Amino acid sequence: MAASSIRFGPGCTKEVGMDFKNLGAKKVMVVTDSTVAKLDAMKQVIEGLEKEGIAYEVYSKVRVEPKDHSIREAIDFAKPYAPDAFLAVGGGSVIDTAKLMNLYTSCPNADFLDFVNAPLGKGLPITEKLKPLIAVPTTAGTGSETTGTAIFDLVSKKAKTGIAHRNLKPTLGICDPLNTRTMPSAVHASSGLDVLCHSLESWTAIPYYERTPRPTNPINRPAYQGANPISDIFSLQALRSTVKYLPRAVKDPDDFEAQSNMLLAATLAGVGFGNAGVHLCHGMSYPISGQNPGYKHAGYAVETPIIPHGVSVAVTAPAVFKFTGASNPERHLAAAECFGVDISQVKAESAGEVLGEALAKFLVSLGDQPRGLKHMGFKREHVDELVEGTIPQQRVLMLAPNLDVQNVEEEREQLRGLFEEAMEY
Amino acid sequence: MAASSIRFGPGCTKEVGMDFKNLGAKKVMVVTDSTVAKLDAMKQVIEGLEKEGIAYEVYSKVRVEPKDHSIREAIDFAKPYAPDAFLAVGGGSVIDTAKLMNLYTSCPNADFLDFVNAPLGKGLPITEKLKPLIAVPTTAGTGSETTGTAIFDLVSKKAKTGIAHRNLKPTLGICDPLNTRTMPSAVHASSGLDVLCHSLESWTAIPYYERTPRPTNPINRPAYQGANPISDIFSLQALRSTVKYLPRAVKDPDDFEAQSNMLLAATLAGVGFGNAGVHLCHGMSYPISGQNPGYKHAGYAVETPIIPHGVSVAVTAPAVFKFTGASNPERHLAAAECFGVDISQVKAESAGEVLGEALAKFLVSLGDQPRGLKHMGFKREHVDELVEGTIPQQRVLMLAPNLDVQNVEEEREQLRGLFEEAMEY
Repeated sequence: MAASSIRFGPGCTKEVGMDFKNLGAKKVMVVTDSTVAKLDAMKQVIEGLEKEGIAYEVYSKVRVEPKDHSIREAIDFAKPYAPDAFLAVGGGSVIDTAKLMNLYTSCPNADFLDFVNAPLGKGLPITEKLKPLIAVPTTAGTGSETTGTAIFDLVSKKAKTGIAHRNLKPTLGICDPLNTRTMPSAVHASSGLDVLCHSLESWTAIPYYERTPRPTNPINRPAYQGANPISDIFSLQALRSTVKYLPRAVKDPDDFEAQSNMLLAATLAGVGFGNAGVHLCHGMSYPISGQNPGYKHAGYAVETPIIPHGVSVAVTAPAVFKFTGASNPERHLAAAECFGVDISQVKAESAGEVLGEALAKFLVSLGDQPRGLKHMGFKREHVDELVEGTIPQQRVLMLAPNLDVQNVEEEREQLRGLFEEAMEY
Repeated sequence: MAASSIRFGPGCTKEVGMDFKNLGAKKVMVVTDSTVAKLDAMKQVIEGLEKEGIAYEVYSKVRVEPKDHSIREAIDFAKPYAPDAFLAVGGGSVIDTAKLMNLYTSCPNADFLDFVNAPLGKGLPITEKLKPLIAVPTTAGTGSETTGTAIFDLVSKKAKTGIAHRNLKPTLGICDPLNTRTMPSAVHASSGLDVLCHSLESWTAIPYYERTPRPTNPINRPAYQGANPISDIFSLQALRSTVKYLPRAVKDPDDFEAQSNMLLAATLAGVGFGNAGVHLCHGMSYPISGQNPGYKHAGYAVETPIIPHGVSVAVTAPAVFKFTGASNPERHLAAAECFGVDISQVKAESAGEVLGEALAKFLVSLGDQPRGLKHMGFKREHVDELVEGTIPQQRVLMLAPNLDVQNVEEEREQLRGLFEEAMEY
C-alpha cells in the first residue's frame, strides 16, 4: 500500500509556509469554501505563507458536495494563475476539489471524463506526477487528506462518482485539532459517522487476494485493494477510537481530547479505506443523498433539504452489516466487540445480526439520527430507483462481501432487500 | 510522520521488473551479499529485470555488519556504473549499504562524514532527492525497507553510528514471505528479537511533544520523532504479533503462517521505530557487539566470535524496561499484557518490574539465548568501557525515558547500573 505523510498536533498549521518553502513552491493556489474562509485555520495558513514571502491566491468558492460544473469552474480559476503548488483548507469537498484542480492544471489537455471512474468515465490511470498539495482538514470525517480519491456529482448522468488514483494523494496532511474546534455538534456527528463507516467497511471489505480482475502490472492496481494486513490495523484502531470518542465529541463541543482523537481517527480511517476501500454503505449512500425526498437533517442551518454524507452512509449500516456478517463472522464479531458487546457466547451465524444491533444502538445513543430511510421520507416505491442508483457504483460494490456482483439480477435483488431492511431500525 | 510504500504478499517479488519500468528506470544497481546472491529471491528479481529488458549490474560484496570502508568500496563500485535506480536484496546490512550507495552517488562531491550522525559526523540534512531504491528484505528483522536509517561501524572512532534522514527511505519495500523461508532457526530468533526491541523501545520512547530541541523548521525534525499516535499503532501491533508468532517461527522453520506474520511484524515495527525511534536497548547494543569478549552465538556457522544484532539488543531488555517502567507505567503494563500477563492487580510502581520479568521469561522460552551479559563473557571490569561506548549514542539516548541526558555524570551512573543489572536475568 502507498501512503502519504501526515503531521498531527495542536498548532502545527502555522508551519505550512515553511513546508511550501521546503518543497520549493513559490506560487500557491489556496482552496477553501466561503465558510472556512472566515475561520482561524485560514488565518493561520495565510500568516504562514506571508511570513515566508510565498505568493498565493485564494479560491474560496468551493461548493459543498461538489458537482462537475463546480469543479470545472475551480479548474478554470486555477489555470491562468498557474500555481506551482496547492493548499486545501476545509472538509472533504474542499480537499477533493483541490485534488482535481491539481490534476487538470497538471494535465491541461485531458478531457474531464478521461480520469473519471469507469463506466461513467474512461477511468484512465494518471501517469503525470502532480504538483505538491498540502491538505489541512477542518472536519474530522472524510480522511481525504490521506486518500487518492475525489468524489463529485456528475450532473448529466445523475450519479455520484469520482476519480481515484494514488497520484491524487496529497503530499502532506496537516491534522491540527485546533482546526476542528469550530465544528457544530451536528457536523461532528455526521462526519464522525462517515469515519465509523470508513472503518467498518474497509475492515469487512473482501480480502486483497480475492479482488478480481488482477492486473498484470502493479501500476494498474486500483486505489482500493481490498482488506489487507496493513489497512486492517488502521481500520480497527479508527473504529475503536470512534466508538470511544464520537459520543463525547458530539455531546460536548469543548471536549478537546475527544475532538483531537476524532480527527486522528478520521485520518487513520482514511489510510485504512484509502488502501482497502469501502463498499455497501458508501455505494448505497450516493442515491440516498441524490434522491432525497425532502429530508432536512437537524442542526444544519440551510434552507434546502439536506442529507449529510455521514448520515446517508450510516442509515443503512445496521442492515448492511447484518447482511455481510456471514462472509466473515470473525471480523464482524471483532467489530461488535469494539462496541462493547460480550461476544464470548455469540455463535458465528449470529455475527452479522449482533453487529447490526450494536450499530443501531450506537446510532440511537448519538441522538438526532433518523432511525432508517422511512424517517427521511423514503417509501417502498422509491426502492427500485435507489437500487438503480446504486448499481453503477461498481468500484465499491466489487469490494462488498456477500454481494453477487457477477450476476446483476441477483445483485439487484440483494440491494432491494438491503434498502427494504434499511427502512427502519 | 512520513511513510514509504510497502507491498506485502507471497510471490510479489517477481513484479520488481515492472516496478522499475513504471519508475522509468533503465539501469539498475542490484545490491546483495554473497549468501543471498545464491537464493531464490535473487533469481526472482533477476528474472523480473530481464523480462522487462532493464539493464543491471550486481554488487554482491556487501559485508554483514557493514563498516565505513566496506561502504566506501560499495560506493566506489556504484559510481562508474552510474545507475538510475537501486535494488537491495537481503537483510539490513544489504539494504543499509544500498541506501548509502544511493546517497553518495547522488551527492558525489559530499565528504563521507557530512551526513553521518553528529557528534561523530557533521549530521547535515540530505537536501538532494535520491534515486529510486526498492528493497526486498530476506530476513524478518531490521525493518530497514521502511526506514530512513543506515547503520555501520565507523572504524576510526571504534563506534557504531549511521546516517538518518527521511530522504534515505526506500521508494518501495517488497515484503514477500517466500523470501524469508531460507532463514535458519537461529537467524529467525535473533532477527525476531530485533523486532521485539524495535516495537518495545518505540512504544516506550519519550512522547514526540517532549523531544528537545524543537527545530523551528519542520524539515529539520529528526527521523526519530519520539512516540506519537501513529507510530504507537504500528509498534503495539508489531509487539503483539512478535509475542504470538516468533516462538512458532523459531521452533518450526516450515510454519509459513508464523514466518509470514513475523515478516509483516518486522515491517510494521520498522514504520513504528522509523518514526518514533529506539532508545536504550539499541544504544547499549552497539558497544556490546563491538566489545565482544569472545562470545559465539549458537546456530551461527561462522569461525569468528559473533553477537548477532538481535541478541545484543535483547540481552539488556529485562534490565532496561525495569528501569524505564516508572516513566510511563500505563504503557509498560500494556506491553506486559501483550505477553499474556494478567495486569488487573498490578500496581503502577511495579510496571517496569513486571514487564522485565515477562521479557526474561519470553527470552528463556525461545531457547539458546544468553541469560545476561555474564553468559557472553562480560565481567564487571568491562562495564566502564561499555558505558563509554554507549554515551556517544545521543541520537537514541535522547529518546530514552527516565535517563538523565542533561547531566552526563548522572547518565553514566544510570548506564552503569543498567549494564550491571543486565549481567544476569
